[in-house]
Amino acid sequence: MRCKPCLPLIPLLVTAPVFAAGGGAHTDPAAPIILGVTAILIFAVVGRYLARRLAQPSVLGELIIGIALGNLVYLLGGDFILVMREGRVLFDMIDLTFSGMSMRDAAAQMFPDPALAAKIVEIVQGPHGMQLLSIAHTADVFSRYGVIFLMFLVGLESSVEEMRDAGMPSLKVALVGMLTPFALGVSVAWLVLPENSVGSLLFIGATLGATSVGITARVLSELGVVRSQEACVILGAAIFDDVLGLIALAIVSGIVISGAIQGVAVMQILALATLFIVAVMYAGPYILRGLISMMRGLRAHEAKIFVTFIFVMGLSWFADLVGLATIIGAFAAGLIMNDQYFAQWQGDDILGCDTVKNLMAPLEAVLVPIFFVLIGLQVKLESFLDADVWLLATGLVTAAIIGKLVSGFAAGGGLNRLAIGIGMLPRGEVGLIFASIGKGLGVIDSQLFSSIVLMVVITTVISPSLLKWALRRGVTNTVCETND
Amino acid sequence: MRCKPCLPLIPLLVTAPVFAAGGGAHTDPAAPIILGVTAILIFAVVGRYLARRLAQPSVLGELIIGIALGNLVYLLGGDFILVMREGRVLFDMIDLTFSGMSMRDAAAQMFPDPALAAKIVEIVQGPHGMQLLSIAHTADVFSRYGVIFLMFLVGLESSVEEMRDAGMPSLKVALVGMLTPFALGVSVAWLVLPENSVGSLLFIGATLGATSVGITARVLSELGVVRSQEACVILGAAIFDDVLGLIALAIVSGIVISGAIQGVAVMQILALATLFIVAVMYAGPYILRGLISMMRGLRAHEAKIFVTFIFVMGLSWFADLVGLATIIGAFAAGLIMNDQYFAQWQGDDILGCDTVKNLMAPLEAVLVPIFFVLIGLQVKLESFLDADVWLLATGLVTAAIIGKLVSGFAAGGGLNRLAIGIGMLPRGEVGLIFASIGKGLGVIDSQLFSSIVLMVVITTVISPSLLKWALRRGVTNTVCETND
Repeated sequence: MRCKPCLPLIPLLVTAPVFAAGGGAHTDPAAPIILGVTAILIFAVVGRYLARRLAQPSVLGELIIGIALGNLVYLLGGDFILVMREGRVLFDMIDLTFSGMSMRDAAAQMFPDPALAAKIVEIVQGPHGMQLLSIAHTADVFSRYGVIFLMFLVGLESSVEEMRDAGMPSLKVALVGMLTPFALGVSVAWLVLPENSVGSLLFIGATLGATSVGITARVLSELGVVRSQEACVILGAAIFDDVLGLIALAIVSGIVISGAIQGVAVMQILALATLFIVAVMYAGPYILRGLISMMRGLRAHEAKIFVTFIFVMGLSWFADLVGLATIIGAFAAGLIMNDQYFAQWQGDDILGCDTVKNLMAPLEAVLVPIFFVLIGLQVKLESFLDADVWLLATGLVTAAIIGKLVSGFAAGGGLNRLAIGIGMLPRGEVGLIFASIGKGLGVIDSQLFSSIVLMVVITTVISPSLLKWALRRGVTNTVCETND
Repeated sequence: MRCKPCLPLIPLLVTAPVFAAGGGAHTDPAAPIILGVTAILIFAVVGRYLARRLAQPSVLGELIIGIALGNLVYLLGGDFILVMREGRVLFDMIDLTFSGMSMRDAAAQMFPDPALAAKIVEIVQGPHGMQLLSIAHTADVFSRYGVIFLMFLVGLESSVEEMRDAGMPSLKVALVGMLTPFALGVSVAWLVLPENSVGSLLFIGATLGATSVGITARVLSELGVVRSQEACVILGAAIFDDVLGLIALAIVSGIVISGAIQGVAVMQILALATLFIVAVMYAGPYILRGLISMMRGLRAHEAKIFVTFIFVMGLSWFADLVGLATIIGAFAAGLIMNDQYFAQWQGDDILGCDTVKNLMAPLEAVLVPIFFVLIGLQVKLESFLDADVWLLATGLVTAAIIGKLVSGFAAGGGLNRLAIGIGMLPRGEVGLIFASIGKGLGVIDSQLFSSIVLMVVITTVISPSLLKWALRRGVTNTVCETND
């Protein structure tokens, strides 16, 4: 594939656009979209690379590169970043113009800051307005699909059996580890910003409750204590965390959407969420078999890709229809799905390469980093110039830390409770997804959003070193049954 | 995962939306997009299923279901289909409104048919305007990404070595099989619609030249004559076809974009295309190694997905920048890419599941069917009510058939030339991609587009039975070296 003699052609290639028939004029309307989306992915990869170098989780690298990019380029006044930063609000603005409103009025209505509103109008009406909106729309859609695939794969990894085996101490730690930060977070937010709506208070609480112990697991294995009781409790708790988190999200978002805060409404939402999960758990397999029976004559990987994609998207859409978050449907789809349903194709797939997980992983791998970079882009560091926001952020970080440390004490005696508490510290994917949903529902404003992302970053950054320090105080090295 | 006792809950679930906190009000802006895109994919799967049942290629099923859907629902006045059918033109209309033009004027400018223009304005300004545009935009972007992945995988399958081994008869058949339909197509189009621009004439010719012998290969193996000389020539010709087709596309689209038809311009474009291919062939491996060196610390499948995605998108964008079609860049990326570059990760991937092909296949599998359904949706059967269009379509089909039959006679003596010619008949993916690019460049109007898609459908449908008939006249059963 190499061609040494062509060496002299390279300089020519650089000048090719000059010779180019189109004079370098883009003819494929997808070209700017390809450039924009790929640029975002490249930044994500750079962030991920740096994170791995510093033994941090990828998500952290993607977040921080997004934050850096967003705030640096914003100061330099880059239109592209500005558009990406405002995201959906822009489309709502365009929507207003469809109903006959002038773009200036629409912008004024969507963007309180008049300078920003003027700038937005200038950009949209500028020569590249449509291109920038197309890129922003594509990145937004890609990131939403990414979150759905992410939660599907989380569900695919979880199983009811696992939860049964995980054991009581883990469940206790998970519950306390969610409720305490929830309570502390709500109180802090209420003290600092009493004018906040109940909905936003609840959302802040839910976001503080989420955990993602990926990095803890890495530290535990690095130190060779994965099979200690402490590790079992932490990793067991992680099994419950996502489910508890999603239940909290279902209730909180339900309350926000319905605008009702009476016990009745809460009960109703809880019932609805349970009903949804139970019913899809029951009906899911039948739906799956129905879909699969449509796939006769297709090859194994085709069939698995189509069935999985349609099933995940169907449940996500249905969850949204009944007033739950799409990711709850995606998670449920993951719980139900497994490769056994496709037994009829076993012949096609001798190597066992075409597992549902392997087939969905590429979609997740490309789309999820875009989500986290977009999250980072939306963090507005300038909002920390406001003393209140600063106070709030500090309060939330403290609440997040104390809340999780307390959870360690639910683990029962004879264990290194501090280590367990610290192990539960890192937030991550799920917390960020909640925050972005809250932003979408309009209960998390950009200041709260920035504070929450900061909280996720800090709790994740500090935990490894703290955990190593705490584990020096020894662990209970009885072999861990639950992980056998 | 099953739960018999929950049976009574199912009826409740049906009424869940009524209880639903959101009262069924969608809260996730992605929900309608998910519904729309998934619906298109479901139709694609149904089409593919029917096609397989009738031993036809998948692409045909996806096309025809798209045509049926488009024309039926259009008659019923479905807004969703109407929006999908007009596709990009809508976004250009919106773009006009950004520059201050009223939507009514913008619609009048983009849609000659006043009734259609009025209907479009009504839809866009209606309650679901933004949602429908979001769905259309997403489907459009997905299908464009799909085509890029498709051409990348075609390139990945092709190799320079193969072409060297394919042999002279195959090259001759491929060349004649492209040039004759090209010449005939141009003449027919010129005779029927003399007012057509040179650009559109050339594009029609290029579209008639493309071949896709997938279905021929299946027939040949069904009849157990894959190792006959005739089969070798056909399958060998297929190796050249895509490359020849892309060169034709490069020249034709170059001419259209530059608007120049003098020999000089053509030479310049040809030089540019060659320069592009040669230079990326030379520089590609270095770029790849550079990208890969960024991926240290990532897992094998992560690294392969990121590198491949960024490389394919980079070359596609660059091809567009220098005035070539994005798919030419994607194809070149496929020619260059191979798993050897990732040798450093071999340890991670014992089973050998994480090949570049396996990792990109899911992206292609989800996105490409959307492209073909969209192509079908854009076929306007009503345009065949016009006698000229009918005449044109008949002429093109005839030209397409005769042109390929002639190619058989380039195969040299002692062979079943008729069978070879018929084997080259089916058009398919590549021809459709050309047609859609021509539509995008504005040289293929919706009447021409409909005629070309009809031509693809007919040539593909008739070839298997014709081929079986022709093969009864015997084949030369000397063992085929080139396929050894």
